[in-house]
Amino acid sequence: MATRQIKFGEIAGFEEGHFFEDRRAMNESSFHRHITPGIDGNGKEGTSAIVLSGGYTDDADYGDEIIYTGAGGNKNGKQVSDQTWEQPGNAGLLVSMNKGYPVRVIRGHKHKSDFSPQNGYIYGGLYSVVDAWEELGKEGFKICRFRLVYSGGKPGRKSAEDTELDYSKKDPKRRKGTVVRIVRDTKKAQQIKELYVYQCQVCGTTIKTKKGFYAEGAHIKPLGKPHNGDDSIDNLLCLCPNHHVMFDKGAFSIADDFNLIGVVGYLTVHSGHNIGSHNLKYHRECHGYEVTIE
Amino acid sequence: MATRQIKFGEIAGFEEGHFFEDRRAMNESSFHRHITPGIDGNGKEGTSAIVLSGGYTDDADYGDEIIYTGAGGNKNGKQVSDQTWEQPGNAGLLVSMNKGYPVRVIRGHKHKSDFSPQNGYIYGGLYSVVDAWEELGKEGFKICRFRLVYSGGKPGRKSAEDTELDYSKKDPKRRKGTVVRIVRDTKKAQQIKELYVYQCQVCGTTIKTKKGFYAEGAHIKPLGKPHNGDDSIDNLLCLCPNHHVMFDKGAFSIADDFNLIGVVGYLTVHSGHNIGSHNLKYHRECHGYEVTIE
Repeated sequence: MATRQIKFGEIAGFEEGHFFEDRRAMNESSFHRHITPGIDGNGKEGTSAIVLSGGYTDDADYGDEIIYTGAGGNKNGKQVSDQTWEQPGNAGLLVSMNKGYPVRVIRGHKHKSDFSPQNGYIYGGLYSVVDAWEELGKEGFKICRFRLVYSGGKPGRKSAEDTELDYSKKDPKRRKGTVVRIVRDTKKAQQIKELYVYQCQVCGTTIKTKKGFYAEGAHIKPLGKPHNGDDSIDNLLCLCPNHHVMFDKGAFSIADDFNLIGVVGYLTVHSGHNIGSHNLKYHRECHGYEVTIE
Repeated sequence: MATRQIKFGEIAGFEEGHFFEDRRAMNESSFHRHITPGIDGNGKEGTSAIVLSGGYTDDADYGDEIIYTGAGGNKNGKQVSDQTWEQPGNAGLLVSMNKGYPVRVIRGHKHKSDFSPQNGYIYGGLYSVVDAWEELGKEGFKICRFRLVYSGGKPGRKSAEDTELDYSKKDPKRRKGTVVRIVRDTKKAQQIKELYVYQCQVCGTTIKTKKGFYAEGAHIKPLGKPHNGDDSIDNLLCLCPNHHVMFDKGAFSIADDFNLIGVVGYLTVHSGHNIGSHNLKYHRECHGYEVTIE
């Protein structure tokens, strides 16, 4: 059915808020390549677009945050059997979650929310899949659930980071004293993780879950004040969460020849990965590993 | 000198914005127990209060975020030798960082910033120590540096979480597509980490850095929508970052008898730790480990 190539991200001519009269109007541009299925994607390439059309009674739409029910087991708006993670659209949403691909969200007139159009379809912008789990749906069958947050960057809308923090904003007591460790999943971080196939450059560990692989992009010279490191490949490593914390807190550092300092071992470095020696030097200095010439 | 007991957090009668005529006025209440040293604290108990008094040329004060220079090696406002992490005030700031203790920040009239008073001293509120590193100061000696963020919870001021996310707010390009993994360090999370002495309940690993121990408080039933789990001891585990990620992503779950499901092993549980079986059940259901009775 979908013989056109899958397209991720924004497509020229279709700004956020774009109105489509019907599903057919989304096909030619590959904005959404199907007429009936809600999810455009598969487990090989990922999922590029979803339509919220009121077919699933368990969906919840908060605007910048959407709890979305996956595909399968649904007949005329009623759940009649279990959903599976292997179903192509669901598998595609997992790929998009693990690889950080953006998903175009389209709301139809049959979808009941404060953000749905009276008729036709409206493009709601790019979202990131940030969580996936399963539960027993209202009709007694297993459903696959996804949490998506807006990540399109339109001024005036909340950023994905803002949405992630909303939890504590609503409760003043929670505001107080809560400190967070933040792991940012930027495009560059995704690149470095793919280069190393999610293997930690220190210990070789890959964290495998039922829903995909996990690793973290670790900035050598930290982002943010006062370090102001770059979000660039020459300032990134692919690490497991444990080595990421240890590296950030200076439990070890890295010499210019990639031998580790503070622990025994060496950093595995891909031939296509030019690590900035100025960044390594900065990290060594921050954590007391740089020998000053007396 | 400081024979009075150290006091952490807010002290009755001294609201944020409280004016002190001089350092002596802070002594009796243990608000700050010293007359000259800037840091009130030590490596055994932690640090409870600091005074910004313009003594260190490397300090930077952004209001809700402060880059603070530790104590030592300073004579009449000039750095004359290296600072060390063992110096009591500095060691105390590390303890406060690792244990999540709040630090009272007081700004003096000699401290030059947009937030300093014309005369006397003003209490700027509670801050959390979120980072520590060393660098070569402007005067050529090693200095210990700390990043503190406001965590007092006064309405209208930024929360610690907001400050941590500021990095991406200033650059619209960075807003787009960035998704974050957030590890919240709440008071309850600190309690659970102390109960287990920073040992992972799954693998027994303790992450040791030069500046202290590190573990994470993992919520069994997640915080935030749509799960709305509690930030309470019966919903928390002490895990290393790797097992925290694996648990959140459902790579394993936990049976009511604390045997692990999905991996071989069992959860170490302290006799004083009542884990809510409803929370464990919720986690198993979310990740397909709950056997439904047919």
